[in-house]
Amino acid sequence: MPQRKRMLFVCVNRRPDGTPKGSCAARGSVEIHAKLKELLKDAGLAKVEARACTSSCLDTCWAGPTIAVEPDHYFYGRVQIADVEEIVESIRAGTRVERLVLEPNDFIEPRELKKAE
Amino acid sequence: MPQRKRMLFVCVNRRPDGTPKGSCAARGSVEIHAKLKELLKDAGLAKVEARACTSSCLDTCWAGPTIAVEPDHYFYGRVQIADVEEIVESIRAGTRVERLVLEPNDFIEPRELKKAE
Repeated sequence: MPQRKRMLFVCVNRRPDGTPKGSCAARGSVEIHAKLKELLKDAGLAKVEARACTSSCLDTCWAGPTIAVEPDHYFYGRVQIADVEEIVESIRAGTRVERLVLEPNDFIEPRELKKAE
Repeated sequence: MPQRKRMLFVCVNRRPDGTPKGSCAARGSVEIHAKLKELLKDAGLAKVEARACTSSCLDTCWAGPTIAVEPDHYFYGRVQIADVEEIVESIRAGTRVERLVLEPNDFIEPRELKKAE
């Protein structure tokens, strides 16, 4: 199979319950990855357009569940399972789901979380 | 922490022993990821230049251990732990370790492996 045009890396890191910054897996990212993989396949996009992988921590826990979209090099954040269909449609269309794209400020850990650690 | 300029996704998928196409973890990728993370940190590159993550299967098992380098969107393959220092140096220099970069043919599963499955 040729190299896919895009790779979507879904963080499935799980921190212990009660960790102040939370974790993507605790917010449902394992299920999000599974659905993303299934819908990419159903849409006929899995072999050429995009592969959905899981990844370790992408270091934006407070804005998770997070998906790194490469090689475009943007992150989706606060993804819910209901968003997956729109993400797959955007892969097909070659667009982004703008409301989910993290902004530069989202990459900075909020001060109150740092204090709580 | 700002978004890193680069992400290195090291496949740590492990297939059962004896699987014809093998797997990256069975070829030492867990240790490769750990060393990559350590040397990026030691070199002062971990906070801005590059983050080393683990990932699920990148679908080039026969050419593993595999590392997806993003957003450049090339794959390193057949990586050995002795290669990690050179990979980190290339991140610093903004270059690639050309001898490790997978070529288009490397993405095609060899016919003899398909038959063996």
